[in-house]
Amino acid sequence: MSPRLPDPDPAPGLFIAFEGGDGAGKSTQARLLARALRDQGREVVTTRQPGGTELGVALRDLVLHGGHVSPRAEALIFAADKAQHVTELVAPALARGAVVVTDRYTDSSVAYQGAGRDLGADEVDRLQRWAVGDLVPDLTVVVDVAAGEGRRRRGEQHDRLEREADVFHESVRQHFLDAAAAAPERYVVLDGTLAVATLHEQVLGALRDRGWLS
Amino acid sequence: MSPRLPDPDPAPGLFIAFEGGDGAGKSTQARLLARALRDQGREVVTTRQPGGTELGVALRDLVLHGGHVSPRAEALIFAADKAQHVTELVAPALARGAVVVTDRYTDSSVAYQGAGRDLGADEVDRLQRWAVGDLVPDLTVVVDVAAGEGRRRRGEQHDRLEREADVFHESVRQHFLDAAAAAPERYVVLDGTLAVATLHEQVLGALRDRGWLS
Repeated sequence: MSPRLPDPDPAPGLFIAFEGGDGAGKSTQARLLARALRDQGREVVTTRQPGGTELGVALRDLVLHGGHVSPRAEALIFAADKAQHVTELVAPALARGAVVVTDRYTDSSVAYQGAGRDLGADEVDRLQRWAVGDLVPDLTVVVDVAAGEGRRRRGEQHDRLEREADVFHESVRQHFLDAAAAAPERYVVLDGTLAVATLHEQVLGALRDRGWLS
Repeated sequence: MSPRLPDPDPAPGLFIAFEGGDGAGKSTQARLLARALRDQGREVVTTRQPGGTELGVALRDLVLHGGHVSPRAEALIFAADKAQHVTELVAPALARGAVVVTDRYTDSSVAYQGAGRDLGADEVDRLQRWAVGDLVPDLTVVVDVAAGEGRRRRGEQHDRLEREADVFHESVRQHFLDAAAAAPERYVVLDGTLAVATLHEQVLGALRDRGWLS
């Protein structure tokens, strides 16, 4: 079977999400995984949250550049982006047997918005689950890095604002770890301080363990 | 006390919504009520849903002109509009003792989106209530007109599409009537086929009954 040709008897669609803090390396890992799957002849749709659709990009721009947006309005706009993303892109791709690899999904929304002071993680979680019609990834890869790690490795000073930022990022990180602990069959947590190639091998290993990759 | 000057000992803010089908005359009644209250020296903020804020206008434009929008994304975008509307405009006005008169509020969202085939009225209602932080109007005036009434009065023919449209509008109308029946102390239902001046007198009467108008 030549690479890039559709599998004559396609496996059912597969939905894989990468989650983790900023700079954890998840985008790189998502790209490497997509390439490896394409090399095996699978159709792979790569996407990202927020902004994976035309509507999503417009919504993200509104939040980033539209002046003050209330916390609930922001949560609802990100949920709308997610709803459109699933309806327009993820669900149709899965239905035709493709692999969908997304850089961030609902866990990021819950982790980031729930870690702020305005909204509870539970209510953001309910909102997100409703938005995506309870579509959960077959596998979520958490690329885990401790909040202060990057800074410490660069030997930078640690001021008050950075400590506050660390508290926020630790809360975000803890959400990913809690989500993984609550559904271990649908998550794998990897150490983001490892080399890119090592991490990629671990991602492939997680797919092989589940029989999704030869 | 001169009109337009702030009341030296302001009454607490008052939140009044007008709801009803298209063409029922609620915008006219909202305007007339606002004028009557201003003539008594009250600060009145008139607004509308959707689109009462800058963000709201941008969101409404996205839904109306942004290509296909999934039903859940649309419901979430309208909820975001409502959340911003309450935070930016309604709540601050009420806090300083103003009267807020809105042309449509959450009941319209639930009635119109819930009357479609895609989403349940209950789930849209939960979403809307979360968006506005459970802020309910002190009084909702339902301007009630039967779906086929306008057409019948114009003596027009009644084809299949119009009958389908009537079924939809009767469902919307029924939602307003059900909402009013469930909380009669916070609703008044008026007959939208009455003359504009008569309706206006009934609106003023409803406020007088509650001690909000001298």
